[in-house]
Amino acid sequence: MTAFIDAIERQDLDAALDLVAQDLEYENVPISVVRGKDNVRQALEPLLVGASEVQWQVLAQVASKGVVLNERLDRFRMGDHWIEVRVAGVFHVSDDRISVWRDYFDLEQFTSQLPGVG
Amino acid sequence: MTAFIDAIERQDLDAALDLVAQDLEYENVPISVVRGKDNVRQALEPLLVGASEVQWQVLAQVASKGVVLNERLDRFRMGDHWIEVRVAGVFHVSDDRISVWRDYFDLEQFTSQLPGVG
Repeated sequence: MTAFIDAIERQDLDAALDLVAQDLEYENVPISVVRGKDNVRQALEPLLVGASEVQWQVLAQVASKGVVLNERLDRFRMGDHWIEVRVAGVFHVSDDRISVWRDYFDLEQFTSQLPGVG
Repeated sequence: MTAFIDAIERQDLDAALDLVAQDLEYENVPISVVRGKDNVRQALEPLLVGASEVQWQVLAQVASKGVVLNERLDRFRMGDHWIEVRVAGVFHVSDDRISVWRDYFDLEQFTSQLPGVG
């Protein structure tokens, strides 16, 4: 999980996707489910490429038997301001690859920070 | 944590609050922070008393060093329908009492199910 988060923070989508299963199921719980590595790439790209800097501050993380749960503050620098999202993440890991990834957060808390909104 | 969730499902607020610290910090992340056992009681009462049945389905739960993270489907039966909230919870436990409790969820997903809304 550390390597995955490191890759996200480096905005290295290739390195991050090397650590997920081909048929990864990725759900932003308030939005939708995306399946498969290519679709996940498309979903992640705008935020990762659009940000000038990315930080995922891991506040707590506990793992057991192929399940990793964490509490995070995900931060994306857009121009001169930071968008901050308080997130709790659920990851299923099998054969050293992330096969399921669900992020719980409040959608309005996120969208209200986007440029041109609110 | 099992005893706490059992008490919640029995809608036994006294039994649930016996398991939390006097100065419990309880945060519904998209809403607000409530501090202290009496204020938490007031915050929980409407939903627990208003529901005719409560189920917290624990989908995943991992604990380590005084931190418990879980993924839940919280269900509250109101009249003839169920309100369902997808939640990820963070609990800090010290001296066998819950001292911090944070629930991550999408507020709109919850409020849109309330009677008279949407």
